[in-house]
Amino acid sequence: MANDQTASQSVDVSGERPGVRAQTSPGRWAGVPVMPYKQSADAPFRDVTRQLLFADPNLACEWRYFEVDEGGYSTLERHDHVHAVMIHRGKGQCLVGATISDVGPSDLVFIPPMTWHQFRANRGDCVGFLCVVNAARDRPQLPGPDDLAALRSDAAVAGFIRTGNEKA
Amino acid sequence: MANDQTASQSVDVSGERPGVRAQTSPGRWAGVPVMPYKQSADAPFRDVTRQLLFADPNLACEWRYFEVDEGGYSTLERHDHVHAVMIHRGKGQCLVGATISDVGPSDLVFIPPMTWHQFRANRGDCVGFLCVVNAARDRPQLPGPDDLAALRSDAAVAGFIRTGNEKA
Repeated sequence: MANDQTASQSVDVSGERPGVRAQTSPGRWAGVPVMPYKQSADAPFRDVTRQLLFADPNLACEWRYFEVDEGGYSTLERHDHVHAVMIHRGKGQCLVGATISDVGPSDLVFIPPMTWHQFRANRGDCVGFLCVVNAARDRPQLPGPDDLAALRSDAAVAGFIRTGNEKA
Repeated sequence: MANDQTASQSVDVSGERPGVRAQTSPGRWAGVPVMPYKQSADAPFRDVTRQLLFADPNLACEWRYFEVDEGGYSTLERHDHVHAVMIHRGKGQCLVGATISDVGPSDLVFIPPMTWHQFRANRGDCVGFLCVVNAARDRPQLPGPDDLAALRSDAAVAGFIRTGNEKA
């Protein structure tokens, strides 16, 4: 179909097509391209992909899907906007504020404003999560030296967080 | 926890609690009450429940979960706001405009403005779906006699739709 071809060439028409887009394999959907996690090169992360499931001009939010592969981690960051998350597949752990939690399929995670957060996949697993976010939102902030010192004052948090400076 | 007790008594604090709320059984989550599908008595539906997964003042959308039991159907309706849907569990069918589609877990469904839509569970199954919607939105419209006549001009649609007037 002409529509299918269009969708595969563009990243932001996915929400505009009426009706059904089927799952084609776990964490993959017809007409939804798999994209790099971040545009900015300075935000540390590892082995994460991003898909934009719904982004329609009539919808005040974007509904995204992120997948963190084994050994990977999302960027440790905070921002004014909130994140509404549901784990879609796989198991892992998340940091929200100073709390580290095990998460698995269908678990819900809410990330309040200005709260440090990071997702990591369990050893031998990936973790894929749905994330709904305001279409209009502020840019994420990365932790500075003082933020990292504060985070690392908690031994469990110090062991969990990944900032891109870890030894391989 | 005091928080749990509060959440079970109120429908709109679910999005405000930071961190993880685990799935407790398929389609059920800690601290998320199962509610009636509709407040209004005039909207026909059958065997549908509603849960508000995220509704935070900082989030421009609400993230809901609806579950249609065997033999049940959501209300046949349309509205200016759009629906972003992912099937969460079970199998069923949906009408979007004049198109009837089989849907199963993880399939995506987009419902554009002013488009008639209805979900039904397959025989012997239930269908549970996630639905993201603008927090500020118009009220759904029910089909009038002319709308129903137009919908029923398509034989497949005529056989699919449920309006509450069917014989048992």
